[in-house]
Amino acid sequence: MADQYAQSGEDMSTGIPAIRWDEPPEGPVVVLLDQTRLPGEEVELVCTDAPALVEAIRSLAVRGAPLLGIAGAYGVALAAARGFDVDEAAVALAGARPTAVNLSVGVRRARSAYDAALARGAVGEQAAEAALAAARQLHREDAEASVRMAGHGLALLDELLPGGGHRILTHCNTGYLVSGGEGTAFAVALAAHRAGRLRRLWVDETRPLLQGARLTAYEAARNGMAYTLLTDNAAGSLFAAGEVDAVLIGADRVAADGSVANKIGSYPLAVLARYHHVPFIVVAPVTTVDAQTPEGADIEVEQRPGYEVTEIAAPSMPVTGAGGGIPVAPLGTQAYNPAFDVTPPELVTAIVTEEGVVSPVTAEALAEVCGRSRGATVG
Amino acid sequence: MADQYAQSGEDMSTGIPAIRWDEPPEGPVVVLLDQTRLPGEEVELVCTDAPALVEAIRSLAVRGAPLLGIAGAYGVALAAARGFDVDEAAVALAGARPTAVNLSVGVRRARSAYDAALARGAVGEQAAEAALAAARQLHREDAEASVRMAGHGLALLDELLPGGGHRILTHCNTGYLVSGGEGTAFAVALAAHRAGRLRRLWVDETRPLLQGARLTAYEAARNGMAYTLLTDNAAGSLFAAGEVDAVLIGADRVAADGSVANKIGSYPLAVLARYHHVPFIVVAPVTTVDAQTPEGADIEVEQRPGYEVTEIAAPSMPVTGAGGGIPVAPLGTQAYNPAFDVTPPELVTAIVTEEGVVSPVTAEALAEVCGRSRGATVG
Repeated sequence: MADQYAQSGEDMSTGIPAIRWDEPPEGPVVVLLDQTRLPGEEVELVCTDAPALVEAIRSLAVRGAPLLGIAGAYGVALAAARGFDVDEAAVALAGARPTAVNLSVGVRRARSAYDAALARGAVGEQAAEAALAAARQLHREDAEASVRMAGHGLALLDELLPGGGHRILTHCNTGYLVSGGEGTAFAVALAAHRAGRLRRLWVDETRPLLQGARLTAYEAARNGMAYTLLTDNAAGSLFAAGEVDAVLIGADRVAADGSVANKIGSYPLAVLARYHHVPFIVVAPVTTVDAQTPEGADIEVEQRPGYEVTEIAAPSMPVTGAGGGIPVAPLGTQAYNPAFDVTPPELVTAIVTEEGVVSPVTAEALAEVCGRSRGATVG
Repeated sequence: MADQYAQSGEDMSTGIPAIRWDEPPEGPVVVLLDQTRLPGEEVELVCTDAPALVEAIRSLAVRGAPLLGIAGAYGVALAAARGFDVDEAAVALAGARPTAVNLSVGVRRARSAYDAALARGAVGEQAAEAALAAARQLHREDAEASVRMAGHGLALLDELLPGGGHRILTHCNTGYLVSGGEGTAFAVALAAHRAGRLRRLWVDETRPLLQGARLTAYEAARNGMAYTLLTDNAAGSLFAAGEVDAVLIGADRVAADGSVANKIGSYPLAVLARYHHVPFIVVAPVTTVDAQTPEGADIEVEQRPGYEVTEIAAPSMPVTGAGGGIPVAPLGTQAYNPAFDVTPPELVTAIVTEEGVVSPVTAEALAEVCGRSRGATVG
């Protein structure tokens, strides 16, 4: 599987990939970087069967929509390679987290390849190889999409900000911990870093779950990037001081009109960016664009449990609250805790996809760029 | 001392005042609500001498600029009443926290009254009474300023938002835990609540130190207000959904031009409020206005230790990090952690003082309102 990580560059030699297939003498395994232990510990989690992988998905040891899809596909391949019941494994994997669409899509892709091989008269081992090939293909496509987004994104930065020395503000976690490659927004910042044109990566801590502090800071440190962590509410001072050249974020979903649903706290950054005439750039693969969602108002925002706000949780922290953390607000406090917010297209300078850059952001331009992927040869 | 709390209304009967003077048979004491134990526990901390009070100030059991001034004045009165060395107590109290100007001002006020009494030929007990009277006077003035700010603020809300049912967003802690009365911005929200015109108090958690979650939520709960806690970065969604009628915040310092330095995260709220055409109202006593600071750019912003961001701390939490908390970012992570930000006057709808409302905010209007206090009879 070394070929799948080769394009990540030298940084991958300094740590553990988010997910990998391995074939030690004892038999094939799926090896994960256990994200629940980050940033304190880098621990490999070795899954020898689909139930172990299901448990890893449930416990959030592996997370992030594209990465979950890849995990699901490898899980099917693992069951097939080890001679377990592939049907049973596929059902369990696809249901490990009910809302992650990518997970069931990844499972279905490996499963279809397996079924098609059997239908062609393949024996068990050959069908297992077909499932693994499909999983590897999905992994590779995602990695390649990252590379292409990074390329388009860096070109856009250089165009918008001639002279280099970019100071980029980012939010949440959008790197290789959520992707088969180096991610979306983070991949662009990493490309700028490798090109010697990243002066500073400003990392929003991203309350309530602190993905910025825990994961993005970890990825930035691991890659030797110049980064600084801040509370989400300190971003305003950076803008006011002229310390932000561009905002780069990912997207959970993009509506057909170009409205961007992303981690809570993205919209305030878009408003600040507009007020300070700073480009606000969204980086997301075309699969994120949902043509079935006409506009931002149609995006249903998931409301998360209040204890994520009223309690603080961290690895190695003793549990005392109902939500598994330590209470920091009076008992009985009600919290407003939407998982994401929606930024209207008029506040988005550009949407960078693996197929090209949409700017200005209009429904027509977005549809045109997304349409390119249908005709393109991927992988 | 009951007279000093009478104007706080019925809510005070349900809890412990932030500070009070008491005279049990064993001798006079200063009794504090130990803020380090909030919101989990309401514990009284009884100080029988100035060193105990100094320790309480250092440990942040009592905090907030106006409240520190009152504590310092009571501390001098306590030393005098118990027959300790008043000089020594005054020096120790004034130096308990070096940057809190109010603390030394409060100490000086009680000390001057004590010295003046001695100079008039008073004996020890009479001089001690003079010191106590000065402390009580300072306490009463602060409480009265709160009442007047609350009155002016509520009138302004009713004028800006006819119909009532106000949904107010606030940031940090500005209630009776930082004041001799009911505070600044919080006092206005409380007045609206008592008048039946507060529909919802949105409480920003206020990272990094979570004063909103720990203290403002506590004050709101104690007063039976309809409140909801949110992460600072979720405020944008509330604005976008039309759920915020006004923002009410306090101020650490107001420059002569009307620029407002306040807790980090205030400025992004001002920008959001402007973008959404929502009034942004600052509530602060005239003593907060610093005529020696011409404009916002002249305000020096305190940079706080990075561990406040890279580590999470809460009462009852075990200490593992260098800063006394639990690390949530990779070791060695650098953090940008300004204590406050500066909002320019053009983003401030009004500044509410005990002497009246400044709106629109101009240097001239601000100077005029502040000038009223010189001629006014206070207390």
